[in-house]
Amino acid sequence: MFHKILIANRGEIALRIIRACKEMGIKSVAVHSDVDHDALHVSLADESICIGPAASADSYLNMKAIISAAEIADADAIHPGYGFLSENAEFAEICEQCGITFIGPTADNMRRMGDKISARQTVTAAGVPILPGTNQSIETIEEAQKIANDIGYPIIIKASAGGGGRGMKIVHSPASLANSLATARTEAQAGFGKADVYIEKFCQHPRHVEIQILGDKHGNVIHLGERDCSIQRRHQKLIEEAPCPVLTPELREKMGACAVAAAKAVNYASAGTVEYLLDSDGSFYFMEMNTRIQVEHPVTEMVTGVDIVKEQINSAAGLPLRYKQEDIKITGHAIECRINAEDPEKFTPFPGKITGYHTPGGMGIRIESAMYDQYTVLPNYDSMIGKLIVHAETREQAIQKMACALDEYIIQGIKTTIPFHQKMMANKQFNDGNFDTNFLERVKV
Amino acid sequence: MFHKILIANRGEIALRIIRACKEMGIKSVAVHSDVDHDALHVSLADESICIGPAASADSYLNMKAIISAAEIADADAIHPGYGFLSENAEFAEICEQCGITFIGPTADNMRRMGDKISARQTVTAAGVPILPGTNQSIETIEEAQKIANDIGYPIIIKASAGGGGRGMKIVHSPASLANSLATARTEAQAGFGKADVYIEKFCQHPRHVEIQILGDKHGNVIHLGERDCSIQRRHQKLIEEAPCPVLTPELREKMGACAVAAAKAVNYASAGTVEYLLDSDGSFYFMEMNTRIQVEHPVTEMVTGVDIVKEQINSAAGLPLRYKQEDIKITGHAIECRINAEDPEKFTPFPGKITGYHTPGGMGIRIESAMYDQYTVLPNYDSMIGKLIVHAETREQAIQKMACALDEYIIQGIKTTIPFHQKMMANKQFNDGNFDTNFLERVKV
Repeated sequence: MFHKILIANRGEIALRIIRACKEMGIKSVAVHSDVDHDALHVSLADESICIGPAASADSYLNMKAIISAAEIADADAIHPGYGFLSENAEFAEICEQCGITFIGPTADNMRRMGDKISARQTVTAAGVPILPGTNQSIETIEEAQKIANDIGYPIIIKASAGGGGRGMKIVHSPASLANSLATARTEAQAGFGKADVYIEKFCQHPRHVEIQILGDKHGNVIHLGERDCSIQRRHQKLIEEAPCPVLTPELREKMGACAVAAAKAVNYASAGTVEYLLDSDGSFYFMEMNTRIQVEHPVTEMVTGVDIVKEQINSAAGLPLRYKQEDIKITGHAIECRINAEDPEKFTPFPGKITGYHTPGGMGIRIESAMYDQYTVLPNYDSMIGKLIVHAETREQAIQKMACALDEYIIQGIKTTIPFHQKMMANKQFNDGNFDTNFLERVKV
Repeated sequence: MFHKILIANRGEIALRIIRACKEMGIKSVAVHSDVDHDALHVSLADESICIGPAASADSYLNMKAIISAAEIADADAIHPGYGFLSENAEFAEICEQCGITFIGPTADNMRRMGDKISARQTVTAAGVPILPGTNQSIETIEEAQKIANDIGYPIIIKASAGGGGRGMKIVHSPASLANSLATARTEAQAGFGKADVYIEKFCQHPRHVEIQILGDKHGNVIHLGERDCSIQRRHQKLIEEAPCPVLTPELREKMGACAVAAAKAVNYASAGTVEYLLDSDGSFYFMEMNTRIQVEHPVTEMVTGVDIVKEQINSAAGLPLRYKQEDIKITGHAIECRINAEDPEKFTPFPGKITGYHTPGGMGIRIESAMYDQYTVLPNYDSMIGKLIVHAETREQAIQKMACALDEYIIQGIKTTIPFHQKMMANKQFNDGNFDTNFLERVKV
């Protein structure tokens, strides 16, 4: 096992990983930008090192500074968390070259899954359903027209190097195809340094359902069931839950088996997530694979009892998974609400000083947050500052519990998404489990 | 189901019950003394009523004021929590006479189990092992000498109306028997209004192991496994855990079955706890039955997933238990540390204003507390102001998790038992599971 892990991240996920290290008896090293000196991850870790100024490019994305910090602290592994360098294949390679274990998948895994065209090719070969479309880059309008006519409108043009909803164009009729293709290619080049785009059938009212998987270096891959993350605003997830309110056991097994097949196809040996679109007729289609720990992993932990971060660390250290597929049982229902420092009406960032802070407590309540009283939420980083997770016997009880816990949660001095979540917990359609990824576009909550 | 429950208590247990009510869609009424105006249970309940001045006798023990409050608020049930009126048979009767459901056992249950001689008679008839001794009141030295000689020294003289360690005399040899008997009877009369005492064989190095039971009004009684509460100081529990580190599955089943038999013997239809002494040879002996929810109920909730307070409310409303014995599975290990506002060396009360407050978070962490920043812990009431509960896969991991969580818990302005618990989590004998109820008398932690 590792003797010391450097956590190349900040905020709640850094705390999550530091806690896992402490419970495993592994020393932890926090890194921080100079404006993060008072952050909780800095005080909670065994050691901390300043890696640069506020701008992420100069600190949390600064590979050289992070590798230097790991060498100075004599860390034998780096956990990247999510975001920042977590899906950066080059960083994983540099870690390896420096003799430091990158706690995550291999650079090859990331490249094959990070490029969406390559991912489509890979999972198709493994028998995973994908939306009708192209498995190679589309460059000319003629190619685009042919494929669009074959699969039928509406179609969606996506950047191969994109992901998480970035760089997409929906095309409803042939008239706008040429223009959309050109724009998509230009934006892809500008946004991701690569003009490659591909075309898919556009699924109009899908749910976002994803499968958590865990792999080890001994060829074992299991899945931990699904999460429904359909409540999104501009492709940003706001509420996640497990299990998905509409999934049948048969469909769960099928989607799980496909996720395991996709992961095995690339010899995946870490925690990861296979994201699907689930159509209203029960068809599901591979969307992308996230090769890292996800923000919403706690809901899966609550219903399975598996500590995903600890398993991820174990796998990176070469240990075999401690669970077989048949050990995984889903118990009860879990919901996560993302607490963002945002205006809850406009969803615009609202950083500032927290002047009063009180967390809810009781049975089935879990808080993942790096907030504290008098802490200043910085404008420099992501506005997601905490997560409130509940676990109860049924979905109905989980919603009730979440509503109560949100009422108890006091964060003064800044605006947060708590009022939005309170309205959601009272929303009839949400309570009925009747929603898709367009819910927040259609419904004024 | 009830439409409104009055909670005749304060502090963390009042919050616990209010949260259960909210999640069940039941209105809640808090009662409070005039010094408890700023207490969290008052602000969290749907309504609140002041029932008298600070002294418990005038407020939280003031039956008339509480019944009046329930009538004014139109509550159809009263939950007494623990302590205060929770084991007061007269109060349960008055509730019944006023047409208000007392959420707990019947007055008859309380009387039969509250009187220790009657309890011994009752459980003996149900086949539950008790320590050798008398099942009737001992009045003369001749009776005492005979029984002490029969069972052998050391013996213990206990007040029939006592409980929880109050009013006990250990006698090591015949020379001190007469004096101890006289003192015990005098103290019993003074302390409990009844001179009746009985004699039991004194078990020198027992563990305190108790079984949580749940009954309904349809004759069903189940048990939820055991808690080990051996870490006590002057009969006050400080750390509780589930399961007991030394119990075999066979012994668990036997102790559980005996607890169910004891409860069924009195037609028990609520939550309750059968307390045993567990001797080092695996023999166990009925000690007493607590006819109420207990402080340490959360550890059982963590390992079984059963919400004991909700079940208790359901049972009181006449609903059948939602679990059968075979549904109860013990998963992982849970530990509870009692956070007392006390000097952690001397265990003397340390009330005062909390000037800084921050709770730990993360997976498997549960906080039951009515504390908040700037709250003043009052000298008028019990010093137990919060409970930190952890749940993990194994006992070792639970201890690690507790150690980390204690390190994160910040309570400034007053002294608490947190430093004591930190030392305990590092104590080798505790880690080995090697302790009995005398541990803190022997070992300087």
